[in-house]
Amino acid sequence: MTSERFGYLTPQTLGLFTDRYELTMMRGYGENDHTPEATFSLYYRSLPTNRGYVIAAGLEQVLAYLDSIEFGERALPHLRAEGFPEGFLDVLADFEFTGDVRAVPEGTAVFPNEPLLEVTAPIEQAQLFETLVLNQVGFQSLIATKAARMRDTVDRHDEDVTLVDFGSRRAHGTDAGVKAARAAFVGGFDGTSNEAAAEAFDLPAYGTMAHSWVQSFETERAAFEAFVDVYGEDAVLLIDTYDTVAGAETALDVARERDVDVRGVRLDSGDLPALSVAVREILPAEMDVFVSSGVDEFFLREFYERDGVADGFGPGTSLTTSKDAPTLNPVYKLVAVEQDGEMTPSTKLSAGKVSYPCAKSVHRFEDEDGLARDVVARRDEDVGGRELLVDVVQDGEVVYDSPDLAAIRDRTARTLAKVPAGVRAIEDPEEYPVAISDGLAATTDRLEADLRKEAGLE
Amino acid sequence: MTSERFGYLTPQTLGLFTDRYELTMMRGYGENDHTPEATFSLYYRSLPTNRGYVIAAGLEQVLAYLDSIEFGERALPHLRAEGFPEGFLDVLADFEFTGDVRAVPEGTAVFPNEPLLEVTAPIEQAQLFETLVLNQVGFQSLIATKAARMRDTVDRHDEDVTLVDFGSRRAHGTDAGVKAARAAFVGGFDGTSNEAAAEAFDLPAYGTMAHSWVQSFETERAAFEAFVDVYGEDAVLLIDTYDTVAGAETALDVARERDVDVRGVRLDSGDLPALSVAVREILPAEMDVFVSSGVDEFFLREFYERDGVADGFGPGTSLTTSKDAPTLNPVYKLVAVEQDGEMTPSTKLSAGKVSYPCAKSVHRFEDEDGLARDVVARRDEDVGGRELLVDVVQDGEVVYDSPDLAAIRDRTARTLAKVPAGVRAIEDPEEYPVAISDGLAATTDRLEADLRKEAGLE
Repeated sequence: MTSERFGYLTPQTLGLFTDRYELTMMRGYGENDHTPEATFSLYYRSLPTNRGYVIAAGLEQVLAYLDSIEFGERALPHLRAEGFPEGFLDVLADFEFTGDVRAVPEGTAVFPNEPLLEVTAPIEQAQLFETLVLNQVGFQSLIATKAARMRDTVDRHDEDVTLVDFGSRRAHGTDAGVKAARAAFVGGFDGTSNEAAAEAFDLPAYGTMAHSWVQSFETERAAFEAFVDVYGEDAVLLIDTYDTVAGAETALDVARERDVDVRGVRLDSGDLPALSVAVREILPAEMDVFVSSGVDEFFLREFYERDGVADGFGPGTSLTTSKDAPTLNPVYKLVAVEQDGEMTPSTKLSAGKVSYPCAKSVHRFEDEDGLARDVVARRDEDVGGRELLVDVVQDGEVVYDSPDLAAIRDRTARTLAKVPAGVRAIEDPEEYPVAISDGLAATTDRLEADLRKEAGLE
Repeated sequence: MTSERFGYLTPQTLGLFTDRYELTMMRGYGENDHTPEATFSLYYRSLPTNRGYVIAAGLEQVLAYLDSIEFGERALPHLRAEGFPEGFLDVLADFEFTGDVRAVPEGTAVFPNEPLLEVTAPIEQAQLFETLVLNQVGFQSLIATKAARMRDTVDRHDEDVTLVDFGSRRAHGTDAGVKAARAAFVGGFDGTSNEAAAEAFDLPAYGTMAHSWVQSFETERAAFEAFVDVYGEDAVLLIDTYDTVAGAETALDVARERDVDVRGVRLDSGDLPALSVAVREILPAEMDVFVSSGVDEFFLREFYERDGVADGFGPGTSLTTSKDAPTLNPVYKLVAVEQDGEMTPSTKLSAGKVSYPCAKSVHRFEDEDGLARDVVARRDEDVGGRELLVDVVQDGEVVYDSPDLAAIRDRTARTLAKVPAGVRAIEDPEEYPVAISDGLAATTDRLEADLRKEAGLE
């Protein structure tokens, strides 16, 4: 038994985090001497349930991946054993990304059909990244969005409330636990309970005691005393193990008896809005009330509607799994490919849905009220407004410094403040106006008509 | 920019994948000289939507973690900077698990209130594991269950159908991508598209081409020819880029023209049951039809109800996110703690739900029809039947050899065959009978009454 059985990914094996078909195609492109320049566009087609916007996140991880991807001592022997020929393994051993990437900065609100990221490179390179890039950007954007909805709901009532990710245990694996903490911070959270995420991304870590601490002592009072004796003013006492109101009184007693300004208490079960009021009446103002268990944006709305009072919340499962909408369904599609030396629009035909071809720009128009509308255009069009995608990799070199997370979180807050309130609604949001430019619409129609004709469909 | 920005977990940092409060409590237990033996039980309280059973999975990863956890060169400086004192850092630096673990073998069907795993150790050790153990067992069990539902649905119609995990790109991060592939195999799948999972867990990898391959050539025919020239009989041609039926004809033409027994075709969009029939009529029997896009157990049921025909399916998002029920909500609760030298039952009081105390056994009774009923009992009771939990760690040593994945998958299949059909239903399943033993019920009632009295609740 070794720790390998855990199934870690490291810089040496992350290159293998791709679908087999990406490798099969990569080899096939090479053996056919068919390695045209290609542009792939990452976007989502429609918003998940009850979502009016998505907050882009995960770019920093994509750049770290592109910058460090390698096929080394574990990857190559595996692929050899799987039957890939030596010529292809040599290509992988020497792999280096030489292309360009444009992307929307993290913390930007994005809407359907707007590229979050576009990769332009020899097709065999751009193809390889599909799986990992979708995985990272899709998940972090999903969680940043969920977090932003909670922050927005809280801010309507009280801007000083602390929101902490408590959901590592229910996240889908370790990477999700760590990345959800990062994405929640991007969305407006203050920190995480996850120590590995705190270490990896320099996030504030929160957490004091569980029910097991209280249960392990003969009485709740003894448990609180033992904790205060170690942590003093940093102590947050969990008061719902036996009876929340009695627990609040015991917590206050212990604080007075030990003559310590205990930081506060946490409630984790029961009728939380009502209990928060009861506890608030017992405790002095300088003791904080922290609420966890079942917290999401809908819980928060009801909590305030019922006049609950709290200084902080710890959303868990609903945050880290985006439980009501656990996928953004992002896609990474070939939109242009070099033919006869020229980049040529490309698409797939599908009944009932349009896949827009071409490398694109997203133009955002604002007025005095905030965001007014977006226009998705061919990149070679000039339709005005502010262009959302920026150059992040050129000729294989990362040319973009990811801002620190606090700056990204500020961007989210500034963006959200400009999104119309109806679009920000947590239930049945209004649709934000996103237009397809005349140029892109015309190119799409012409290409689809040509393809239908070639396929004998009309 | 370094690959650190990706946020990898390795054996050196996995110890940090815990909630801050586990570490806070661990330090507090030590500084209070309060380190009683404790038993924690991992279970789930109720089944997710439309689930009648859960397939246990993830034990091998828990054992690898317990066996290799360390606090080393990255963890200790981080915790020092966070303010943990040197005495506690010394404890972590020397950390070694010395306790016992019992667990249900992977591939076993488990029901509400049945422990999947119990840890008995000095409380500060057992406490530390909570976050990671819930994260790994919760996620893998969730996905193994989702996979088993799909396998079961397919098997009712055709036991020779291949099921392949296509969902890495939509999984929640890289660990989820890799572990979902493993768990899907446990649940009855045949392999995965994810190359990293194939490497880590020696799983069969599947995958040939995407739409981008087809789009990148001037014609679909040229794309198919180029692929067959490299892969010959291994080629599976994606035929829905422009028109599925025309694509099937082109695929057949290319196979004949090149005189190659091409393995088959894949359909990824449109009215898949109807298209599968149309394509099946065009292709010779020796060419397989593979179906992907939107596949889950409900899709499969409808596919067969509409007389679709396929040799294989590639479920993606619905599998790796368990989209209709993205969490199992497992808990890890203190159920017994040493007091005055004796292990004493422990629980938390909660309005409206019971948390059963005591280290437990699960007794399974079978009759000629298969599983008949389970009884959850105190571990010191003898109530007959077959006990599900086995010793996996004793005095800190792993004493259990995880079977290889094929053997685990066989166990899932054997177990499922014995689960009553009504309990296996993918919609509104019947409830499997799980009883609480008289002994456990009496202990629970007595403990709750004592705690209520102490808390002044009656």
